[in-house]
Amino acid sequence: MSQLLSDLRVIEVSAFIAAPLGGMTLAQLGADVIRIDPIGGNIDYRRWPVSDANGTSLYWTALNKGKRSVTLALDTQQGREIAQAIITASGENAGILLSNLPASGWMGYDALSAKRDDLIMLRLTGNPDGSAAVDYTVNCASGFPMATGRGGEPVNHVLPAWDVAAGLYLATGLLAAERHRRRTGKGQEVTVALADVMLATVGNLGYFADVRVNGAVRQPIGNDLYGAYGHDFPTKEGRRAMAVAISNRQWRALGKATGLADKLAMIGPLMGVDMDDEGGRFQARDAISAVLAPWFAARTLAEVEAAFAGSGVLWGPYRDFGQLVAEDPRCTTANPLFREIDQPGVGPLLVPGSPLSFPALGERADHRPAPTLGQDTDAVLGDLLGLSSAEIGRLHDEKVVG
Amino acid sequence: MSQLLSDLRVIEVSAFIAAPLGGMTLAQLGADVIRIDPIGGNIDYRRWPVSDANGTSLYWTALNKGKRSVTLALDTQQGREIAQAIITASGENAGILLSNLPASGWMGYDALSAKRDDLIMLRLTGNPDGSAAVDYTVNCASGFPMATGRGGEPVNHVLPAWDVAAGLYLATGLLAAERHRRRTGKGQEVTVALADVMLATVGNLGYFADVRVNGAVRQPIGNDLYGAYGHDFPTKEGRRAMAVAISNRQWRALGKATGLADKLAMIGPLMGVDMDDEGGRFQARDAISAVLAPWFAARTLAEVEAAFAGSGVLWGPYRDFGQLVAEDPRCTTANPLFREIDQPGVGPLLVPGSPLSFPALGERADHRPAPTLGQDTDAVLGDLLGLSSAEIGRLHDEKVVG
Repeated sequence: MSQLLSDLRVIEVSAFIAAPLGGMTLAQLGADVIRIDPIGGNIDYRRWPVSDANGTSLYWTALNKGKRSVTLALDTQQGREIAQAIITASGENAGILLSNLPASGWMGYDALSAKRDDLIMLRLTGNPDGSAAVDYTVNCASGFPMATGRGGEPVNHVLPAWDVAAGLYLATGLLAAERHRRRTGKGQEVTVALADVMLATVGNLGYFADVRVNGAVRQPIGNDLYGAYGHDFPTKEGRRAMAVAISNRQWRALGKATGLADKLAMIGPLMGVDMDDEGGRFQARDAISAVLAPWFAARTLAEVEAAFAGSGVLWGPYRDFGQLVAEDPRCTTANPLFREIDQPGVGPLLVPGSPLSFPALGERADHRPAPTLGQDTDAVLGDLLGLSSAEIGRLHDEKVVG
Repeated sequence: MSQLLSDLRVIEVSAFIAAPLGGMTLAQLGADVIRIDPIGGNIDYRRWPVSDANGTSLYWTALNKGKRSVTLALDTQQGREIAQAIITASGENAGILLSNLPASGWMGYDALSAKRDDLIMLRLTGNPDGSAAVDYTVNCASGFPMATGRGGEPVNHVLPAWDVAAGLYLATGLLAAERHRRRTGKGQEVTVALADVMLATVGNLGYFADVRVNGAVRQPIGNDLYGAYGHDFPTKEGRRAMAVAISNRQWRALGKATGLADKLAMIGPLMGVDMDDEGGRFQARDAISAVLAPWFAARTLAEVEAAFAGSGVLWGPYRDFGQLVAEDPRCTTANPLFREIDQPGVGPLLVPGSPLSFPALGERADHRPAPTLGQDTDAVLGDLLGLSSAEIGRLHDEKVVG
């Protein structure tokens, strides 16, 4: 699997989540992703959470696994010229820049494509007009916080979902542009705005049409699923479980596994809905939940799990991050997604590789740690730019490279 | 832009969000994406929200824009053989199947690759062991609901973020596998589990490391940003605004634009933190919010917007889905992301194209509507399989095709 994109080289000048995640996604498929940072690190290098022991950012190391790291004095003319030379270095599968930082001057597409005319540049901005925005300032306008929770006040998501989606759009766009270059010889600048990722997603899920066609603005419904049946139930010991039935088969499985099928069948005439229809079950959800709640309240989470095992019921337990690590069998090396590796500056860690699995290429193998800052500077200057040890040494002395 | 992937053909057998979004992402870059459904539609064909006027699913139409639609009697041997023939039809840029449905029997990789040995198959499962899971039953175990809101009970996200991410991983994986096939001639089955998308993302954001290294389990902090400063403020008329300062420059801009820089500077000694550090500002966030809140409470949202215009302050207003459509200038055809089109069964709609913009290919142009169910059956049978009108007519008579 590490061989899949092994001939592809991507240079990343980035910070925070979106572009680093896009680059890491490709690195974990085998691409040579070289992240260039200022000496001392970019503005995300100390981002929380950090290791209590030594201040190493657990965020930065998690988002930059499998990359090489080069540090340059990007505030100097010479440092910038070296960065340009790395970005535009030869190779038919090279000449690709991925960035979510302001790209003007030396890092603008015009300046770089003057040095390599088939350059591909992927650039994430905040807003479509190029102005700044981050996940939190995009999300608040998305409509989702106003439809989350029980109402009364908006609730922000904690998952940086727009950044994650933007990173994956960058990876998709990069491969599409590289495919186009191989067919036509032509590079190009590809731009994505974080706000557009949000807006496209809201539209792609039908929310705009609901407003336009029905005049309907989705209201918060707690943890219930919209348009079909799904509810979270407290268990005997105060844990919680989410039970979902979208298809009729899942609905019947839920009735059978709880032994409550007969009672659930009474809800159709009671509430005047078609219980063989997901929309009907959504409309009758409070009555359904009232019937099911005592079943969950009488059982521990382990008893719920045992009752649902092999039943075809679609359900899951709630876990906090600690419980996820401690309890979830999917979150161990029994799952090929994970490996235990040593992360410099952090220590032994369970780290995920790519969620994409290519079984024909053998076991998932690309679980490399994040680099230490600047660890590959000399190798990249030598291999890509052909600089001698003496030249590299002089650049160190002049503090042009880190 | 519609030319970017115009030689690529992808067959999709799917339902709900992830695989349809993955296919649509490629369709909007120009790929010929043919979705095959059972006659009458798959289990997502009536999914809410639906048009109040005629029951057309606004969800289905939003997630299948720009595709072609073929309907076959997939419960018959002959229907399945036609589906296999479409999936494995010749063409060096064809022979690619994208699915999030159970893939065994006629749709298994073995059966299909026996008919076309360089077949690429992208397959999303729920859990890594192949068992079923959906966004809601994956999300509850992710840790995020327990870290969302103000605590006391978990809060589910409403954005189906894992499905969205999975769809984009599928698009990335498909292009990576297609690139590999062009280099080596070899197809393969690529699998992704929705639960692995969640687990990889939790790991990629540093949450596992925080548990492992620091023994820290992220707790809910309302709408505040973690690790830097960000808070939501009610305005004079009861609207809300999210204000964020991650970098020192953004922090200074916030102090300057509100005229509260001097007071904010007093918080460092007051709280014993370094206010020139994002972590220090996070620790002192309640004091910061206390100083800023009266400024927001004394202003309408429009006055906040005017005060922050051009100031470098990172902020955004909260909007529900209706306000997003009604108020947000980014959510109009002034943004090249959007076009006004006519969606059969729904009517005129503002629809997003791809958030990826390829300026060198001209204006974003791929804003095709979703197909009506089965509208392309005859064309695909004729063009891809070379069936005559008479043969196609007979298949209709026999109710093998829809």
